[in-house]
Amino acid sequence: MTDTDTFSLREGEVATDLPAGFDASLYYIGRIRTPWTRRQDCPKNGRETEAVCTIEVDPRWAQGLKDVESCSHLVLLYWMDKAPRNLVVQVPGHYGAQHGTFALRSPARPNPIAMSVVKLLGVEGNRLSVVGLACLDGTPLIDLKPYFASTDSVPDAVVGWHKKG
Amino acid sequence: MTDTDTFSLREGEVATDLPAGFDASLYYIGRIRTPWTRRQDCPKNGRETEAVCTIEVDPRWAQGLKDVESCSHLVLLYWMDKAPRNLVVQVPGHYGAQHGTFALRSPARPNPIAMSVVKLLGVEGNRLSVVGLACLDGTPLIDLKPYFASTDSVPDAVVGWHKKG
Repeated sequence: MTDTDTFSLREGEVATDLPAGFDASLYYIGRIRTPWTRRQDCPKNGRETEAVCTIEVDPRWAQGLKDVESCSHLVLLYWMDKAPRNLVVQVPGHYGAQHGTFALRSPARPNPIAMSVVKLLGVEGNRLSVVGLACLDGTPLIDLKPYFASTDSVPDAVVGWHKKG
Repeated sequence: MTDTDTFSLREGEVATDLPAGFDASLYYIGRIRTPWTRRQDCPKNGRETEAVCTIEVDPRWAQGLKDVESCSHLVLLYWMDKAPRNLVVQVPGHYGAQHGTFALRSPARPNPIAMSVVKLLGVEGNRLSVVGLACLDGTPLIDLKPYFASTDSVPDAVVGWHKKG
């Protein structure tokens, strides 16, 4: 909540009151190791970099990686723990216009969970090498899943408000 | 935790001890309305049904939907609150072989967050009509995001252990 309290709104941004309490809880199941330690150094998205990042899964969960090595791509969910949670309308610096939080991939959202599709290079014990991430070093991991083209790939999807679609 | 205590392992399944405490917490931001009230009635995945489902976003967050109507597809994250969280190796009934939890899309995982890509039919106020879901009626929503083909679509991705890839 401290992040939210000290966060200042840009012109055009709208915040809402947060609910009185939480409804469910998460375990951090590992950490993401990347080359970036400052937000301003992170690429805008994971397709802008070929940097190899490392996923360290806690030993407690390592058996859950059985057969993951047979996947060419994975869905990663991770926790953007520095982001404010009360913004409903945002003005991202690189777009300069108002957009609803749910029309954006901004880390600032009620539940600051980021989703990235990554290419899997290899698995060694509880460590995975992947390409396609753009988050800070040390980011908490909350899930990883196999990427199924049959349900997850929509090549002709469009985001109308976004210039590049 | 009760679900876990009362959950019985199938032959070949492996459970781990859960951590002593949680690391982060979630708000439910809405509910998913579907035609299915019993698990056995749910389709196996969202591409097996053309049923129109409704996402009800809590009024508190409704302003966050600005511009969402311009998206052809969305990423939904939702909470599978009935699933055990301690399984690391599972034997799904329809596959009949052992797989690690992170090689499966099973709801049973340390953080039971499901991710689905859905087609957006329309937005009316705080209600969205979508196609591509296969979850129980009343499932808690935790996030929705625009689907960007540029970063999220990998048509040639392969899940090696899975017959159909």
